Amino acid sequence: MAKATEKNRIPRGAVRHHIVDVASGLFYTNGIRAVGVDTIVAEAGVAKTTLYDHFASKDDLIIAYLEKGDQMFWRDVEATLQQHAGDPRRQIAALFESFETMIASPQSLGCPFLSAASEFPELNQPGHAVALAHKQKLRDRLRDLAVSAGAHAPDQLADQLLLLLDGAFASKRVFRTDQSPVRMLHTTAQLLLDFHLAES
Amino acid sequence: MAKATEKNRIPRGAVRHHIVDVASGLFYTNGIRAVGVDTIVAEAGVAKTTLYDHFASKDDLIIAYLEKGDQMFWRDVEATLQQHAGDPRRQIAALFESFETMIASPQSLGCPFLSAASEFPELNQPGHAVALAHKQKLRDRLRDLAVSAGAHAPDQLADQLLLLLDGAFASKRVFRTDQSPVRMLHTTAQLLLDFHLAES
Repeated sequence: MAKATEKNRIPRGAVRHHIVDVASGLFYTNGIRAVGVDTIVAEAGVAKTTLYDHFASKDDLIIAYLEKGDQMFWRDVEATLQQHAGDPRRQIAALFESFETMIASPQSLGCPFLSAASEFPELNQPGHAVALAHKQKLRDRLRDLAVSAGAHAPDQLADQLLLLLDGAFASKRVFRTDQSPVRMLHTTAQLLLDFHLAES
Repeated sequence: MAKATEKNRIPRGAVRHHIVDVASGLFYTNGIRAVGVDTIVAEAGVAKTTLYDHFASKDDLIIAYLEKGDQMFWRDVEATLQQHAGDPRRQIAALFESFETMIASPQSLGCPFLSAASEFPELNQPGHAVALAHKQKLRDRLRDLAVSAGAHAPDQLADQLLLLLDGAFASKRVFRTDQSPVRMLHTTAQLLLDFHLAES
C-alpha cells in the first residue's frame, strides 16, 4: 500500500531522475563495476522492479550517468564562455581556470569519462562511446575557440589543451589531493595561449 | 599425474612469474575488476590452488601486476636516460619522444596505474598505493632532471610534464587511436623545455 501511494505521488520522470542521481554518486565515488544494481536500489530506496521499469539493464544506467555528466559539464562550460563572449582567448583561459578550480576541489575524483574508459576499454562496451563522444566534442570545441582566437595551428593548440586537461583529471584520481600537478593546469594553458597567439 | 609432473618440472618462481604475466595481460586489456580469478587460472592453465599457493588473494595479484609494470617502466626509462647521460635537457626530450612512441603504438591501452586508480579510487584500495608511489617517483625523477637541466622552477616544469604525460595516457584509453592528442606529447614537452630552459 505504501509503495502504491508513493508511486502515485511521485512523477515517473522524478523517479528516473532520482535513480540516475543515486547511481551517479555511487559510480563516480566507487567505480562503475564496483557498484551493483542491488546497492543502487538500496541507496535509492526503490524496488528493483522500479529500477528495471526505467532501465533495461545496468548498461543503460551507466549510459544515463555519463549523459547526465556530459550535460552538466557543457552547462558549466557554456556559462563560463558566456561570461567572456566575443573574447575567445579569454574564454579559453577562463575555461582552464574553472577546470583547475573544479578538479582541485575536494569533491573531484577526476573525470567520469576517463574512468569509464578505464573500466570499459573497448569502444563497444557500455559508456565508452559516450566518453569518446564527450572528449571529441570538447576537442572540437577547443579547436573552434582556437580558430576564433586566431591560432595558426588550432588543431595542435586544441590537442595540447586537451592533454593538459585530461592529465589534470587523471592525476587527481591518483594523487587525491590539490597538491597534485592539477595546480599547474591554468598557468600551463596560459603558456600555450601565449605561444600560439603571440602578437607579432 | 600430468599436473604432478608439470609441478616437478617447473620451478616455483617460474610459475609465479607465469601467473603474473597472464594476469597482467588480462587486467590491462579488460580492466582489473572485469577479470576474475577463474579466468586467470583458466588462461594460465594452472589449478586454482596453485594460484592461491602463490597469492593469498586477487588483491596480492593486482599489486604484483602493478609492481611488475612499475619495474618495466623504470627499466625503459633508465635505458632512455642512459643514452643521453650528461645532457639532462636532452634526456627529458628523449623520454617524451619514447613515451609518445609507446603510447601511440596499437598495443597501448593507456597507463595501468591511472586505470587502477580509476577502478580503485580510495588510497587504501588494492593497487592504489602502488599507483600513487609510481606517479610520485616519476614526478620526483622529472624534478631531479629539471634541476640538473638548470630549470629555475623545477617543480613546476616536472608537474607540467606529468600533466602532459598523464593526459596522453588517459586520452589514448578513450580515443584508442594514434590520432588522439597523444601525437602532441613530445612537441609540447619540447615547448615547455624551451620555456623553462631558455638561454638568456
